[in-house]
Amino acid sequence: MTRGHRPAGGLSTAAAFRLSQYLRCIATHVDAGNISSSILADFVGVSDAQVRRDIAGLGHLGQRGVGYESTALCDAIRRTLNIDRQWSAVLVGVGNLARALLRYQGFQAQGFDIVALFDSDVTKVGQAVEGHSVLPIEQLANRVQALKVELGVITVPAEAAQGVADVLCASGVRGLLNFAPLLLKVPSKVSLVSVDLSVQFEQLAFLVGTSRA
Amino acid sequence: MTRGHRPAGGLSTAAAFRLSQYLRCIATHVDAGNISSSILADFVGVSDAQVRRDIAGLGHLGQRGVGYESTALCDAIRRTLNIDRQWSAVLVGVGNLARALLRYQGFQAQGFDIVALFDSDVTKVGQAVEGHSVLPIEQLANRVQALKVELGVITVPAEAAQGVADVLCASGVRGLLNFAPLLLKVPSKVSLVSVDLSVQFEQLAFLVGTSRA
Repeated sequence: MTRGHRPAGGLSTAAAFRLSQYLRCIATHVDAGNISSSILADFVGVSDAQVRRDIAGLGHLGQRGVGYESTALCDAIRRTLNIDRQWSAVLVGVGNLARALLRYQGFQAQGFDIVALFDSDVTKVGQAVEGHSVLPIEQLANRVQALKVELGVITVPAEAAQGVADVLCASGVRGLLNFAPLLLKVPSKVSLVSVDLSVQFEQLAFLVGTSRA
Repeated sequence: MTRGHRPAGGLSTAAAFRLSQYLRCIATHVDAGNISSSILADFVGVSDAQVRRDIAGLGHLGQRGVGYESTALCDAIRRTLNIDRQWSAVLVGVGNLARALLRYQGFQAQGFDIVALFDSDVTKVGQAVEGHSVLPIEQLANRVQALKVELGVITVPAEAAQGVADVLCASGVRGLLNFAPLLLKVPSKVSLVSVDLSVQFEQLAFLVGTSRA
């Protein structure tokens, strides 16, 4: 679930989501030089016309019959999604999910720079995890303010998540990525993206249950 | 990204996704008895009219001015999403993400019954993880066939994912939930839901970068 401001540029979150998918598609065709709207459409599961409309909104990037130049298209999408720069982030709650996220090669590559990890468990504080020493949760507000951290990643249990979100928002972060299974309340100036993994399971059950196989 | 059959029942995957979100919303209002379309609309970020259209498709569930009876609405949504039954699933690749998924209370509650875990790492085979003994990957095909497993969860590294998917599909699973960052190729009779966590990061960057704060 994605909640946040109505984006200023007029692009809907659904359109931004498609742009993210186009980036994934281009990454699987790195050698291609050019990429066609039909390859992008097939990958994302939308119409050719939808792809052409989405990309037309990015500027002059393609010629009829030739397709889009992959590097230029990637650059344009990354500018539009604001991932042509680094974003500083902290992660709160150093459990299995956090470790999986930190090892996930995609994040750093996409411009997300995790600058500190926090946990309330004293047995975890001081541990080295993927190159970071886990800091005590009591230092969260001070560090976020001192380092002018922009984003927070919340991987604590549901019952602790709102408290962590409150501290992060009060300390000046501009966006939260929440993995705890609850609806967080955040000030309107803070953007929120929540990842609820059981929704993905439900989507699969829906597809399997309604397929004609 | 969700890829799979065009659902037979006519409901789009986007509509199914909204139904999942309505379930989440109702779960946060368990004491309410009835729930209004405006509460659901606000939670998911769609219009009241969209909510009413979505729910009208489920049968006669609400009265003007009274809202929807929460339990009946939940039941109807769970039937439509095919989560009013148990789905058997295996998980392949017992790393941090797998452990996080297994501990995630949502899965079992939503009807997903993980019946076996597999890994190619001999040091992990035989380990007890969340009540399961990790099995060697060589047993994957036999076990999936013998247990008539319906779904596969893939949490192996990207380079191993297609091979695992091939074995699962050849062994008769009907759907795959893929967390490896690549586009899997599966037979048309197998449904595929892929979870690419860096897309969520990009959505957050987009929202933060375009907010008027």
